[in-house]
Amino acid sequence: MTQPDSKLLAHIRIVLTRTSHPGNIGAAARAMKTMGLSDLVLVEPAIFPNSQADAMASGATDLLAQARVCATLAEALADTTLALGVSARRRDIVSEVLTPPEAAGRLLTEAQAGRVALVFGNETSGLSNEELSLCQGLVTIAANPDYSSLNLAAAVQVLSYEIRQAWLGHAAWPQPEMDAAVGEEVERFYGHLETALADLEFLNPGSPGKLMLKLRRLFARTRLAKEEVNILRGILTAAQEAKQSANRARNRDAE
Amino acid sequence: MTQPDSKLLAHIRIVLTRTSHPGNIGAAARAMKTMGLSDLVLVEPAIFPNSQADAMASGATDLLAQARVCATLAEALADTTLALGVSARRRDIVSEVLTPPEAAGRLLTEAQAGRVALVFGNETSGLSNEELSLCQGLVTIAANPDYSSLNLAAAVQVLSYEIRQAWLGHAAWPQPEMDAAVGEEVERFYGHLETALADLEFLNPGSPGKLMLKLRRLFARTRLAKEEVNILRGILTAAQEAKQSANRARNRDAE
Repeated sequence: MTQPDSKLLAHIRIVLTRTSHPGNIGAAARAMKTMGLSDLVLVEPAIFPNSQADAMASGATDLLAQARVCATLAEALADTTLALGVSARRRDIVSEVLTPPEAAGRLLTEAQAGRVALVFGNETSGLSNEELSLCQGLVTIAANPDYSSLNLAAAVQVLSYEIRQAWLGHAAWPQPEMDAAVGEEVERFYGHLETALADLEFLNPGSPGKLMLKLRRLFARTRLAKEEVNILRGILTAAQEAKQSANRARNRDAE
Repeated sequence: MTQPDSKLLAHIRIVLTRTSHPGNIGAAARAMKTMGLSDLVLVEPAIFPNSQADAMASGATDLLAQARVCATLAEALADTTLALGVSARRRDIVSEVLTPPEAAGRLLTEAQAGRVALVFGNETSGLSNEELSLCQGLVTIAANPDYSSLNLAAAVQVLSYEIRQAWLGHAAWPQPEMDAAVGEEVERFYGHLETALADLEFLNPGSPGKLMLKLRRLFARTRLAKEEVNILRGILTAAQEAKQSANRARNRDAE
């Protein structure tokens, strides 16, 4: 068997959002490194850097030193083509719910073409609906229904373990099915969509939240290719131009 | 599919030997409970009970309250028919090295007939050769060769996770192949063996260690059935009686 490609592991990012306890960040870094993962991104950690994080990281303090801190999850996912959220419970916000081995397979397949991410929420509250709306799928670890609360670093360990086992088990992965848009491109599309809907007076610019969240869910489910983003933005531009013409004509008539 | 039998999970014991940090005991209890395991046995913990153990256990303090503390690993395994040691590295002391899914399958199969155990060593030094000599097999988690040091509770989480996934995946397990002797019966056999070898003057009673360890390795590899233990002890008794007769005859001749 040919040696599995270590670039694939380097392309898999672990994102921890709004982590309360710095010790969990360190323990998560250790869990990652034992399985050969190295790309750690922290979104709004409560306390970081921190000596307790270093202590819990043990021999993985290099991952903490290299860890990137972001202000938003969108920023953490800007260069990724696939983000999977980890949740203890099923959520209706994303259609696809994967087991850890399924998630490992998906991530490794997509990692051939670009960066991918696993997203873990706050220790107590998990991932918010807003955070989940930036993910294209959900991973759940089948746990004891009477007590399903895995420690954050323990969940990172299980998922990292499954990624390594899948990586070791396959010399090659199928090519990803499409040339997926990265998070940044998708976010620019959402921005464009929101502006266009406001232009069309379809959206109340004072409270765009609910409608935009529903539209995000829809597109997160499908995952967008780069080409599809271009097509959709072309349609939005055409609609904006039509509205501007209509407005101009109405203003002319009103004169 | 019929519901898997929850008695099987109740028959799987987690044994932590010589644990240095009480927080790890608590975190291990939490990891166990999330996967439906409940039988925790501690051998010579450095500090227990302890508030840090309680804090790390979170919602699994009931497991700590029920945990049994033993003075020796032999005592912890006295009623088990199968004990698998968890080690980061291959060890030549036991012939059989299992992956976590293989270990999960073995434990669940044997758990139909009696109690079985997974044994975890000290955080720094792992399992000693003496501890491993009480195990019938070894489990290793395939990890990053450059940094394979999983946190103790993280290793408990991975193995407990694999046990639960295997348990969920099978409504039924094959019956175990034999009526295995429990640890206590095997230990009594070793005690008898040592006495008999001393009687036969085959063993230096002042330093029995090395030979006995080699013999333990041999029998640990094979795993002993109840009937086999009886046969072996019958042979030992016969040999002891022969030696006594010989001694009596020699003494008579010397008179």
